[in-house]
Amino acid sequence: MPAMTASELEAFLQSHFPEMPEEHDFGFRVEHVEENFVRVRMVHHPRHLRPGGTVSGPALMTLADTAMYLALLAMIGPVAMAVTTSLNINFLRKPAPRDVIAECRLLKLGSRLAVGDVTMFSESENEPVAQATVTYSIPPRNNSAS
Amino acid sequence: MPAMTASELEAFLQSHFPEMPEEHDFGFRVEHVEENFVRVRMVHHPRHLRPGGTVSGPALMTLADTAMYLALLAMIGPVAMAVTTSLNINFLRKPAPRDVIAECRLLKLGSRLAVGDVTMFSESENEPVAQATVTYSIPPRNNSAS
Amino acid sequence: MPAMTASELEAFLQSHFPEMPEEHDFGFRVEHVEENFVRVRMVHHPRHLRPGGTVSGPALMTLADTAMYLALLAMIGPVAMAVTTSLNINFLRKPAPRDVIAECRLLKLGSRLAVGDVTMFSESENEPVAQATVTYSIPPRNNSAS
Amino acid sequence: MPAMTASELEAFLQSHFPEMPEEHDFGFRVEHVEENFVRVRMVHHPRHLRPGGTVSGPALMTLADTAMYLALLAMIGPVAMAVTTSLNINFLRKPAPRDVIAECRLLKLGSRLAVGDVTMFSESENEPVAQATVTYSIPPRNNSAS
Repeated sequence: MPAMTASELEAFLQSHFPEMPEEHDFGFRVEHVEENFVRVRMVHHPRHLRPGGTVSGPALMTLADTAMYLALLAMIGPVAMAVTTSLNINFLRKPAPRDVIAECRLLKLGSRLAVGDVTMFSESENEPVAQATVTYSIPPRNNSAS
Repeated sequence: MPAMTASELEAFLQSHFPEMPEEHDFGFRVEHVEENFVRVRMVHHPRHLRPGGTVSGPALMTLADTAMYLALLAMIGPVAMAVTTSLNINFLRKPAPRDVIAECRLLKLGSRLAVGDVTMFSESENEPVAQATVTYSIPPRNNSAS
Repeated sequence: MPAMTASELEAFLQSHFPEMPEEHDFGFRVEHVEENFVRVRMVHHPRHLRPGGTVSGPALMTLADTAMYLALLAMIGPVAMAVTTSLNINFLRKPAPRDVIAECRLLKLGSRLAVGDVTMFSESENEPVAQATVTYSIPPRNNSAS
Repeated sequence: MPAMTASELEAFLQSHFPEMPEEHDFGFRVEHVEENFVRVRMVHHPRHLRPGGTVSGPALMTLADTAMYLALLAMIGPVAMAVTTSLNINFLRKPAPRDVIAECRLLKLGSRLAVGDVTMFSESENEPVAQATVTYSIPPRNNSAS
């Protein structure tokens, strides 16, 4: 069972990244949370665009990393200080200048490492624009309550 | 022999990404260009920080992607419309809140694909904070001059 | 619509790799083919084992690469000389000493690059033992038959 | 300082993989060991070949994984039960039917994860045939000798 709801995840994201509006206010909306899965929407903003009108690679990488972070927090709760250890992304199609939806599924949730698969779609498209695999390191959790 | 100098690369970057100051004015400085190699500095800015005072993963991924883009343009010139097809990054150490230096070496410069290795260091540190491998697709170049 | 059936794919594999029994007779069985998807079984053999009784990483990497090759051939037919350009794999759980099933889905089938997602399971297990993303380069196809 | 010499590493490899001659007797020779670095030679054998006369992708992936394993053992000694957690490889050029040399440099040797960069060359060539980044998980080491 997830440890956090969609609205708890959004509130966590906003409270922990308040001072970095330019980079982190990507307008992430957590649309759905279930066991080992989240769906996150990156609301379209002109600053995500590259010349030619496509959503930039760095914006998609930020979305992939964030979706995995939220999928992990959804399962283990907001206590752990998890950090990305690796990210592999394939850019598949030019993303239209629209919202991008990321679906992240946890492939593994171990005691030390979590691995997730993130597939990203332009809104209302069926073919993915990018696919990423993201690994997070989970710090040792001690028994003391917090 | 490189086709563009460091200052030509900086000018190209600024002229092609003028409308996206928040995301793209990362203060990239091209410090050195040689055959199949560039060194790029990402000037420190508070918006690159994560809670805890480390440079964020998305900032490092943007640096890796940009360094590879510049290494490629340095060799083939500003004409081609190259796009990232994949990026793999390993985060190795927490980066201090300082400038980050990326060294990108082209491992392959083919007619259709280019692959580069990007190693990133916090300023004045010897141990890398991250390593990335980045692949770009190079569009077909036709024989007609333009 | 796929261009080749499961039995055509198996026959192709055997006819093109006859002289390398040790490495390539992995006992690959093509179990299912559909649009942009194949399921391939690697029949268990003691030479795939590592000390400790788990299926080796190189055996899983060979399976991932082969599954993607077959998924691609299934769609474009046996004519093209496609080659792997990159492979990213995450090892998720220790695989039991049993058959391993790979499911490969094409994420992109372009004119020059194809990208597939390969998820691998120990027979009759639900949790994947490994996940890979594999990219193949497709040589230019000319119109003349040959 | 390395904990094992080149000949100790070769002896370890042979003693731990005796029962798998077809797959593991790749004729690996450890040519050089120093702090955070090994150079390993994969002696040419016809079973490594693909149609067309190039060394196969699976043979190169096995070399990359083994070189990283040896670089890690060289530093921490033969006691730990380290396992590959991820491998990313880019195939850069067709390898000639000759020995392949792998140079593995440890980018990070942490208490839980080690990351290495492996660059592979056909014998007496300067341009790499492939580049890999490999991550190993290092099991917790306890203080009690055993």
